[in-house]
Amino acid sequence: MVASIHYLTAPERVEELVSETVEAARAASYRLAAAGRREKDHALTLAAAGLRGRQKELLAANGEDLEAGRASGLSPALLDRLALDGRRVEGIAAALEQIAALPDPVGEVIEGRNLANGLQLRKVRVPLGVIGVVYEARPNVTADAAALCLKAGNAVVLRGSSSAQRSNAVIGEIIREALSEAGLPAQAVQQLPGQDRDEIVALAQAKIDLIIPRGGEQLKETLQKAATVPVIYAASGNCHVYVDAAADLEMARKIAFNAKVQRPGVCNAAETLLVHEQVAEAFLPAALGELIAAGVEVRGDGRVQEIASNAGLTVGAASEEDFATEYLDLKLAVAVVPSVQAAIDHINRFGSGHSEAIVTADLAAARAFQWGVDAACVYVNASTRFTDGGEFGMGAEIGNSTQKLHARGPLGVRELTTYRYLIEGQGQVRS
Amino acid sequence: MVASIHYLTAPERVEELVSETVEAARAASYRLAAAGRREKDHALTLAAAGLRGRQKELLAANGEDLEAGRASGLSPALLDRLALDGRRVEGIAAALEQIAALPDPVGEVIEGRNLANGLQLRKVRVPLGVIGVVYEARPNVTADAAALCLKAGNAVVLRGSSSAQRSNAVIGEIIREALSEAGLPAQAVQQLPGQDRDEIVALAQAKIDLIIPRGGEQLKETLQKAATVPVIYAASGNCHVYVDAAADLEMARKIAFNAKVQRPGVCNAAETLLVHEQVAEAFLPAALGELIAAGVEVRGDGRVQEIASNAGLTVGAASEEDFATEYLDLKLAVAVVPSVQAAIDHINRFGSGHSEAIVTADLAAARAFQWGVDAACVYVNASTRFTDGGEFGMGAEIGNSTQKLHARGPLGVRELTTYRYLIEGQGQVRS
Repeated sequence: MVASIHYLTAPERVEELVSETVEAARAASYRLAAAGRREKDHALTLAAAGLRGRQKELLAANGEDLEAGRASGLSPALLDRLALDGRRVEGIAAALEQIAALPDPVGEVIEGRNLANGLQLRKVRVPLGVIGVVYEARPNVTADAAALCLKAGNAVVLRGSSSAQRSNAVIGEIIREALSEAGLPAQAVQQLPGQDRDEIVALAQAKIDLIIPRGGEQLKETLQKAATVPVIYAASGNCHVYVDAAADLEMARKIAFNAKVQRPGVCNAAETLLVHEQVAEAFLPAALGELIAAGVEVRGDGRVQEIASNAGLTVGAASEEDFATEYLDLKLAVAVVPSVQAAIDHINRFGSGHSEAIVTADLAAARAFQWGVDAACVYVNASTRFTDGGEFGMGAEIGNSTQKLHARGPLGVRELTTYRYLIEGQGQVRS
Repeated sequence: MVASIHYLTAPERVEELVSETVEAARAASYRLAAAGRREKDHALTLAAAGLRGRQKELLAANGEDLEAGRASGLSPALLDRLALDGRRVEGIAAALEQIAALPDPVGEVIEGRNLANGLQLRKVRVPLGVIGVVYEARPNVTADAAALCLKAGNAVVLRGSSSAQRSNAVIGEIIREALSEAGLPAQAVQQLPGQDRDEIVALAQAKIDLIIPRGGEQLKETLQKAATVPVIYAASGNCHVYVDAAADLEMARKIAFNAKVQRPGVCNAAETLLVHEQVAEAFLPAALGELIAAGVEVRGDGRVQEIASNAGLTVGAASEEDFATEYLDLKLAVAVVPSVQAAIDHINRFGSGHSEAIVTADLAAARAFQWGVDAACVYVNASTRFTDGGEFGMGAEIGNSTQKLHARGPLGVRELTTYRYLIEGQGQVRS
């Protein structure tokens, strides 16, 4: 039997519903933790085939979601995220196959040694247990998040948006059928209906091991107040490119342009450009000219405005708030700094600890920057845009973390595990 | 100049005091993160020498603490934890030297590779930043906690008990002087006076990276409600010994006795004994007889009571609550189970995820138990009492974690770090 999506009958049942859902997931999690790689990968491959085989049914459900979304006035951007077509379904299926092809993190021996008393100690990677994932109206996340959690041996409770409920229900059903067919518990993938914000609060206070929100600031605030379980926040990124006195200015121009313009709406895009005073006059006119030509609104400190004005460019004034803002847009704050240390201090003050880059040919400056900047990813002579599980060779990612505990940077399947010490003796007791 | 301990002038100043203290620690943390192993180890060695050299002054301050403690009616057990003498001071100094001798976790390359696009990626261990440690009236923790945090490159805010304030102040001063003499920022070791519970709340909501409580359930509850920063709880341990059908019963008797009796007041002591029904009659009479003779109060399920009664032993009845309780005392709950799977299920239901042991000669039972029990440390044929950073070869520990995120089991210096990706390119941009 395949578990089906739950629908609420009354608001006061939310807590009960979540608690039952989590219990079912917990029971399944023990069976899944004992599963081998073969079964897990088989289930993911079957799910990919199921998506392709039932594409017509999925697109019909998605069509109903879209119709309801248009009727309720969803923005074109949200409708675009919600929409599926043959190409997108194929993308989701291919992603499941890629996750199946990743190494199984479970069972990895992280370290080990024999102790003086003859005990054999191994520190091994094991699943976390039950993971909650809260996300918006993107049906592909239903498949991605479930697959990443399953690959790492975890049961998952998915809480998508009600706007995508019909699409999500079909995708969830396909994955549960694939689990059953592979001899794994279908209950390992649970779905909440996404009809009520109370679901999120109840999930964040239920007996799960981790909750991962993929959404905006409002969701983050809700969880910061309510969560009693650990949360890994998909990060905001106030990222910087620092052009050092010893930079190759042509390389710096390309990196700054790529970090800002290539995809401004993502967390690893740059929001502030810092330039060493020795190269500010040589660097800024061409670099800012190119950015402005690409539609970027530039806001600079006094020195930047002066240099821009001498070059016939119009640049607004940057406030402290500009330096603290993640624009996620074609906007860029620019400042001139007297030293690499001043750049480090600026970044440690305003940055969000995501991705930071220095452009320099100077070894000492590179070293000072990489060890002095307190961020998940610190680049020398490369764009901040590379912070991504796929780019890093970790396979798919479920998000990016700027927190320091547990996992920092891209969150791949390995980051969805914990570890356990296995110790084998021959009757040792402690004296 | 050496920072001195702060004293409150008014309760409303607590938040301000904590915030200033944390800011000073943060500034120092950046300098400490850049320090090499040589400076850090030098400071710890100087601190050990300082403790020995200023022993008279420290014992005088401790004498005043003890006097005030006796006057305010502290229990003999608490007075004993508070008391220092020459031997204990030497123990504290020696512990600092042992921490100095540990490998430096900072800079360890956890993994790394060259990516297809030529980027060189390294995942390196770096300090967390600022760690808060909240503890009770044990002056040795002042030195231990500070040394472990410093070794891992972190600044620390110590919040001891007011009962130990004079002792703590001298120890803190000695460490700060040692830091200064070694060329490191004295401000990296901050101390709060411990006069007010508001200090704990303010610290748990300040801009620190982690708070580690070492105290009882009340402290844990305070933090669960108040903390907005990550917390690693020093764990409670409801630990089990399971005697399998294929156990060497003589070995099982020794392990059960050691796990319960050797030091019953610590978190890795056993609280429940589970016995496979096939060996219950052969095992329990001698094993329980020995435990009862050592002063252990035994509470058993129906079958245990029956076997005990047949052997002329008096055993009380164990309730569900007994199986859920961490006695930390000479008490033991005992149950008979029909299979290794039933033992695993019992432990996953009642255990706290700390340390669990199976005694068996059967490979399949050992494997099922080690991979099926959801705990930090799972033993085969050894006492649960070995769960300890020192025993595991990690050097000293600051506590034991039963949580699954970040760090599980003994918390050594490596667990007081995070990581950072350092990526080096030659102008790579993302397409």
